[in-house]
Amino acid sequence: MKWCSFQVEGEQRVGVVAGEFVYDVSNQLHTTSLLEVIAREFEPDVDLDVAPRSPLNDVTLVAPYRPLKNVICIGKNYEEHVKEMDTAGAGKLVIFTKAPTSVVGPGAVVERHPELTEQLDYEGELAVIIGKSGRDIDDVDAHIFGYTILNDITARDVQKQHVQFFRGKSFDTFCPMGPYIVTPDELEFPLTIQTVVNGETRQDGSTADMIRPIKELIRTLSKGMTLEAGDIIATGTPAGVGHGMKPPVYLQSGDTVEVSISGIGTLKNVIV
Amino acid sequence: MKWCSFQVEGEQRVGVVAGEFVYDVSNQLHTTSLLEVIAREFEPDVDLDVAPRSPLNDVTLVAPYRPLKNVICIGKNYEEHVKEMDTAGAGKLVIFTKAPTSVVGPGAVVERHPELTEQLDYEGELAVIIGKSGRDIDDVDAHIFGYTILNDITARDVQKQHVQFFRGKSFDTFCPMGPYIVTPDELEFPLTIQTVVNGETRQDGSTADMIRPIKELIRTLSKGMTLEAGDIIATGTPAGVGHGMKPPVYLQSGDTVEVSISGIGTLKNVIV
Repeated sequence: MKWCSFQVEGEQRVGVVAGEFVYDVSNQLHTTSLLEVIAREFEPDVDLDVAPRSPLNDVTLVAPYRPLKNVICIGKNYEEHVKEMDTAGAGKLVIFTKAPTSVVGPGAVVERHPELTEQLDYEGELAVIIGKSGRDIDDVDAHIFGYTILNDITARDVQKQHVQFFRGKSFDTFCPMGPYIVTPDELEFPLTIQTVVNGETRQDGSTADMIRPIKELIRTLSKGMTLEAGDIIATGTPAGVGHGMKPPVYLQSGDTVEVSISGIGTLKNVIV
Repeated sequence: MKWCSFQVEGEQRVGVVAGEFVYDVSNQLHTTSLLEVIAREFEPDVDLDVAPRSPLNDVTLVAPYRPLKNVICIGKNYEEHVKEMDTAGAGKLVIFTKAPTSVVGPGAVVERHPELTEQLDYEGELAVIIGKSGRDIDDVDAHIFGYTILNDITARDVQKQHVQFFRGKSFDTFCPMGPYIVTPDELEFPLTIQTVVNGETRQDGSTADMIRPIKELIRTLSKGMTLEAGDIIATGTPAGVGHGMKPPVYLQSGDTVEVSISGIGTLKNVIV
């Protein structure tokens, strides 16, 4: 299933997308929070036949939800991306986080923050949504609710300035997410990941090229640290970020960034 | 005022500590969550004369609360501590985070995680509690609810292994906090910070020695990133961590770690 959060007349709703329609399942599930649905840890049972529906074009899709902790991010997880960046940390499993205040939805404006950075960059990524809490997880599939698209917006100069990545990754609006969370049964791996800036394809990768595949990431991350339903894990970006171009090209006000992942859709945002 | 969270017959309550008593103000404030009290963003109005009270010794103090995002931590903020550690990042403002799942209270057990680390270490720290949300904060005092004690437990080998600090700082139980959140009017800066392991004083510092004082930290952190009421910022540790001893001495099962800060109290935990 394709889950989403959307707004009707300014009110937040939980939706399931099928064809060109979004079905409002908030009443059936007794909540307007998709995070709450996921946190229940059991397969949500919805009947689309009795759900009110709207054409997708008539509703405003928003971020699936704001998580109850920072978004967990994997760095340097695609070989070609490691090569285009400085090599510090190459070969190591790099894990950092983004503040939940940075989460915005599809179509939302990404702030340029010109007073803080001259090197704004994108990173198109597949994000895993944890569906069942656990520690020392072995049967990874049983703990995955679904997948979404995430753009790990980064201020490269700020990232470098503080050694640790957190601040350069966490300015407000730096974490566009969505538009849908798609359950595993609807996806055929490997997935393609493409990032297009102003119509020009910059990233064109495949999840097959992850240095550490999703199962290994979740097994490692959950060692000693409880992962919880609703946790979001961004699995790293393929080659083709602006910082890696020769010469580097950074995002400017007015730029449109679209991240597309096969089977999920397209996450589009404009820099302002 | 000295705020705390405590348990009576397994039920969570919000308390104010005065003398040897804890006053249960949950009913007056219509909540059992100290985080909710802080998130209201106005000075909580309580009348201790009509609050039920218990001797402090009769209740179980727990962590003040679990925050709605990772704990924000400042690294290398005391000159002598920078010298005892490797010098990477010296002079830079190092900011990383700890997972909220790592938060535990005073008296709680800190897991040794022997299968994951051979270099378990303590870091006694003063933590600031944000009381009013804001971005690009200038009048810092207006945004501080109070202060507490935090032990930034760290797996040194894991911290190093991943370049980014997050994982080595985030194993379950790695963030003891408490026992009280004390409002600024009750504290006289600079504060002393002492960490005692099995009766031996290891850290004996003063907040006067911070490289970047609290006002600067909050001004910088809030640039471009909204800080929210309830956010927790650990302000760095003075010299004297186990990793800096010659030879290094790490925490072992059975060790008792007590972090004391003047005007706040003592946060005591046992490694198991």
